[in-house]
Amino acid sequence: MSEQQKTNEAAVTLDGWYALHDFRTMDWSSWKLLSSDERQVIMSEFSSLLEKWGKTETAGNGSHTLYSIVGQKADLMIMVLRPTMEELNQIELEFNKSKLAEYTIPAYSYVSVVELSNYMGSGEGDPYQNPQVRARLYPELPDARHVCFYPMDKRRSGNDNWYMLSMEERKKLMRSHGMIGRSYAGKVKQIITGSVGFDDYEWGVTLFSDDVLQFKKLVYEMRFDEVSARYGEFGSFFVGNRLTTKQLPSFLYI
Amino acid sequence: MSEQQKTNEAAVTLDGWYALHDFRTMDWSSWKLLSSDERQVIMSEFSSLLEKWGKTETAGNGSHTLYSIVGQKADLMIMVLRPTMEELNQIELEFNKSKLAEYTIPAYSYVSVVELSNYMGSGEGDPYQNPQVRARLYPELPDARHVCFYPMDKRRSGNDNWYMLSMEERKKLMRSHGMIGRSYAGKVKQIITGSVGFDDYEWGVTLFSDDVLQFKKLVYEMRFDEVSARYGEFGSFFVGNRLTTKQLPSFLYI
Amino acid sequence: MSEQQKTNEAAVTLDGWYALHDFRTMDWSSWKLLSSDERQVIMSEFSSLLEKWGKTETAGNGSHTLYSIVGQKADLMIMVLRPTMEELNQIELEFNKSKLAEYTIPAYSYVSVVELSNYMGSGEGDPYQNPQVRARLYPELPDARHVCFYPMDKRRSGNDNWYMLSMEERKKLMRSHGMIGRSYAGKVKQIITGSVGFDDYEWGVTLFSDDVLQFKKLVYEMRFDEVSARYGEFGSFFVGNRLTTKQLPSFLYI
Amino acid sequence: MSEQQKTNEAAVTLDGWYALHDFRTMDWSSWKLLSSDERQVIMSEFSSLLEKWGKTETAGNGSHTLYSIVGQKADLMIMVLRPTMEELNQIELEFNKSKLAEYTIPAYSYVSVVELSNYMGSGEGDPYQNPQVRARLYPELPDARHVCFYPMDKRRSGNDNWYMLSMEERKKLMRSHGMIGRSYAGKVKQIITGSVGFDDYEWGVTLFSDDVLQFKKLVYEMRFDEVSARYGEFGSFFVGNRLTTKQLPSFLYI
Amino acid sequence: MSEQQKTNEAAVTLDGWYALHDFRTMDWSSWKLLSSDERQVIMSEFSSLLEKWGKTETAGNGSHTLYSIVGQKADLMIMVLRPTMEELNQIELEFNKSKLAEYTIPAYSYVSVVELSNYMGSGEGDPYQNPQVRARLYPELPDARHVCFYPMDKRRSGNDNWYMLSMEERKKLMRSHGMIGRSYAGKVKQIITGSVGFDDYEWGVTLFSDDVLQFKKLVYEMRFDEVSARYGEFGSFFVGNRLTTKQLPSFLYI
Repeated sequence: MSEQQKTNEAAVTLDGWYALHDFRTMDWSSWKLLSSDERQVIMSEFSSLLEKWGKTETAGNGSHTLYSIVGQKADLMIMVLRPTMEELNQIELEFNKSKLAEYTIPAYSYVSVVELSNYMGSGEGDPYQNPQVRARLYPELPDARHVCFYPMDKRRSGNDNWYMLSMEERKKLMRSHGMIGRSYAGKVKQIITGSVGFDDYEWGVTLFSDDVLQFKKLVYEMRFDEVSARYGEFGSFFVGNRLTTKQLPSFLYI
Repeated sequence: MSEQQKTNEAAVTLDGWYALHDFRTMDWSSWKLLSSDERQVIMSEFSSLLEKWGKTETAGNGSHTLYSIVGQKADLMIMVLRPTMEELNQIELEFNKSKLAEYTIPAYSYVSVVELSNYMGSGEGDPYQNPQVRARLYPELPDARHVCFYPMDKRRSGNDNWYMLSMEERKKLMRSHGMIGRSYAGKVKQIITGSVGFDDYEWGVTLFSDDVLQFKKLVYEMRFDEVSARYGEFGSFFVGNRLTTKQLPSFLYI
Repeated sequence: MSEQQKTNEAAVTLDGWYALHDFRTMDWSSWKLLSSDERQVIMSEFSSLLEKWGKTETAGNGSHTLYSIVGQKADLMIMVLRPTMEELNQIELEFNKSKLAEYTIPAYSYVSVVELSNYMGSGEGDPYQNPQVRARLYPELPDARHVCFYPMDKRRSGNDNWYMLSMEERKKLMRSHGMIGRSYAGKVKQIITGSVGFDDYEWGVTLFSDDVLQFKKLVYEMRFDEVSARYGEFGSFFVGNRLTTKQLPSFLYI
Repeated sequence: MSEQQKTNEAAVTLDGWYALHDFRTMDWSSWKLLSSDERQVIMSEFSSLLEKWGKTETAGNGSHTLYSIVGQKADLMIMVLRPTMEELNQIELEFNKSKLAEYTIPAYSYVSVVELSNYMGSGEGDPYQNPQVRARLYPELPDARHVCFYPMDKRRSGNDNWYMLSMEERKKLMRSHGMIGRSYAGKVKQIITGSVGFDDYEWGVTLFSDDVLQFKKLVYEMRFDEVSARYGEFGSFFVGNRLTTKQLPSFLYI
Repeated sequence: MSEQQKTNEAAVTLDGWYALHDFRTMDWSSWKLLSSDERQVIMSEFSSLLEKWGKTETAGNGSHTLYSIVGQKADLMIMVLRPTMEELNQIELEFNKSKLAEYTIPAYSYVSVVELSNYMGSGEGDPYQNPQVRARLYPELPDARHVCFYPMDKRRSGNDNWYMLSMEERKKLMRSHGMIGRSYAGKVKQIITGSVGFDDYEWGVTLFSDDVLQFKKLVYEMRFDEVSARYGEFGSFFVGNRLTTKQLPSFLYI
């Protein structure tokens, strides 16, 4: 197999909706300075924004979700999926222009696109017409109690260089890696987003579960798998609890 | 032993209460601008919060403690243990909404869960019913004069890759490591919390002692142990002195 | 071949216009405090600046473009090409003195010079007189829908040390690397700028495309190429959408 | 020799007074806004604090010194030695509550304890009763014109892993290292403080000299010694000039 | 040759004037708030400072220069040479107390001393009496159109450990390195300053040229030289244009 062939095989991924993970810290001191009425007006404006996003979701043109992040890294994570990069940019702009944004401080963000890797084998026919594939590329974000987000790279360091392995070797390694993931089916829903050329790591991993401990079990178990053990480089981990539209007023209540 | 078996063995840990270490720096300049009466009101509000947490502790549903941190990294460490991630989040929110929080600046935080590793061998029966195991998973934080906190990883670098070792090798290494820890019994109390999937390092280590020098002796001695020498990667170290409810007014007094 | 000869061969590059990538975050909170009229005045002033830059472009003495960056890294990227370092500095100064600058926060910048590497073989005669070469050294920035910018180094680490390879080896590696780039002709326009001695990385890469997904495909495919896999070190990635003079008022509208 | 024995030998150090290095940057803009009278009041308050610390020093219960740091890293270094960690904390608190602190910005700090390593061989009898040892563990900080401070680690990386060497090897390496230090006797006074478990590096090095160039000569010469060349990892370097109580008013004069 | 001898040979350098590189960012927003008259007063005060420094230069007791830095890293670089560390500190203090300083934000600084390395062979007699050597140790900073500054280390990593090489090997490597530098004579003036024990890197490199592209050519060509390729570790690069006293009013004009 020539170098060029190896490269070409490697480059095939299926790409779905674009994803923006937007982490914000509340500026509680300024928020408290407002009167209860002023806060009410701001929350109403933000609710309208969420409603608008909800209509897009109902129409099957995207999805979004809100989580409250534990610890000082951030207070809020807004995750949004949209068909184009321009729409993500537009949503970011709308939020920045909203009143609530004035009471938040940017904490971290991640730009990526929902991705199915070519290691899984996408079967016959145009995969973009396959309903199962479509459901994974254009997912409705689940209503899980907890979220875990982290960005990651495949290592390129000395003898541990993922990108110098043959397609064959990578396939084999990814298969055993995927088996661990599959053993958590029903317990953890996993959305992989690719960010090569879009953000500082190569992938984003967003995990959803009703049992927050499953994040630890899954990530820890995978760490012993060669793909992570030898080739995984991880960024910051964010863990959070579901913040429904209904819980939002209580979250923001002073 | 197959790769899958090795992985499965590795993944068994016992998990107890969730832990939030919340480090804060006092905004002394703003604090001084307040009148003595205003400061009194704020301290009363914070005391009520501590009282409430105290009741939870008395009811056996968690534990908390306060330390004054030495050096510029932070002024205060609030450490809280709770049965769920949502409760940690709630406590964080309550603190952020309190008046005192307006006079503090977030300095660092750590999200984890009390963990007993599978290397120790948990004996027969359901370990979660074993009183000794329960005492370690759901601990009352000790009333020690000093605290030391640091997060850490097991290294995955070239030939020093913890996660590529066999369960057998890791067990042997952890045994000698644990022996050092045990030689400090009575002098240092050690709480290990797991944070894989929750925060940026894999573990948090919280040490308590009435003799601050024991932290240095313990950590230095362990550094020559292969587990630390070859496989330990350490984050920031925080050291502090006990700040009892009784000492708090004097700490905050201007 | 002596060490000195190898060095001399390596040092030959063709250098064109100087480049400034200037990333800015909008201070939306302050911007909103202005009256609509005040914002109008500020936008007019900025439009005059853009017009002036446009005249320089028409006269063939430089080029510039504006993009809206996705995510929290920045809101705006202003990219400017000019014949001298002093002109870049002058433009920076003019922008900093403009009213709009008061409502932006510096986010990142990159100083470099358009560069054609000596690996491509520049043919006979004075390359600086070759129209094709000139078109690449003094480019008009394209009107593409999307931009991707990242700085990069060639690695000098243990056995993966680009600068210890012979000219012959580097040439061979760059040829296969360039072939990937060429396979994206018509889809992605790529401007390489050299920054050795000017900024913290050795090169800046600016990609333009009407299909944002092509950035991911191109950079991912290249990552399996030995030049990137073994020798590439990458800085932050910025991705954005075209912000035309016509779109600017809507971008800044409150 | 068993692993345990090696470890035990390694762990023996003699520990003296606790040390706080507190680096501060002056907020000159705010300081200038004060009237000359207000500044006078603040300086008087700070002088009282220094007087109080002076009495502790006279009583043999600690030592302190002030240096003006060169460059933007900090303007002031306050170095304090005390018998307990609580006293360091108390001094920090007192300074933070002083008026002068409102016109300073925390820049860096280091928490450690004066340490004599076990490599030197402490002779017969209880070393803590040996007057020469006591003079080094509980030193009066010298009145030298210049100071140099830097934190450092012993490297644990691949084949250069200090903590995997035998006691024998470390002893031999430290002997030649110590000989360089001794050749600067009379020119440079060196105080080593241990910070394992207390701060982010393993040691702090504080050098005092009347000839600032001796810092460069000493550190550069040591860098060729195997202990530093293969095993030394260095943090930030701070260099400064003596700021006596008498020079303080001129330093703060506007 | 014994270890001690190797070390001693290595430690011989010739040291001249102390150097402070002080990088500042203009706070343009505050600067614009001033009236034209207020700005005039501030510029006059700064001109007086420059005049005073000019007299020192005329008297042969130091040198200084101002450059406008390109990109967001800084707006201004003030480089000052003086016979003692105290004088550098005094100049820093004077600038910080000046009105102009209130409108600048510290961006980066570097503390070092002009150094001639022992690899060059300093000839017979007391080198400090040699006029050519003196001209290099106590240089008048050139009036060049452009400046380039970067700090650097010699690498101590695995097999690429500069400080484990013999004097002989280092001498040979430095000779070929120096030849590249010499081939730029007349085009680039290079001032090497040593900072071991003074700042975070081991050396500062300040290049002056009327042709900014020569910085890129020189640094790039050197990168293929083994001294840089295997042993060089570089900090941030700053590039700027000469800011004469005459150009200053226009630079600061609003």
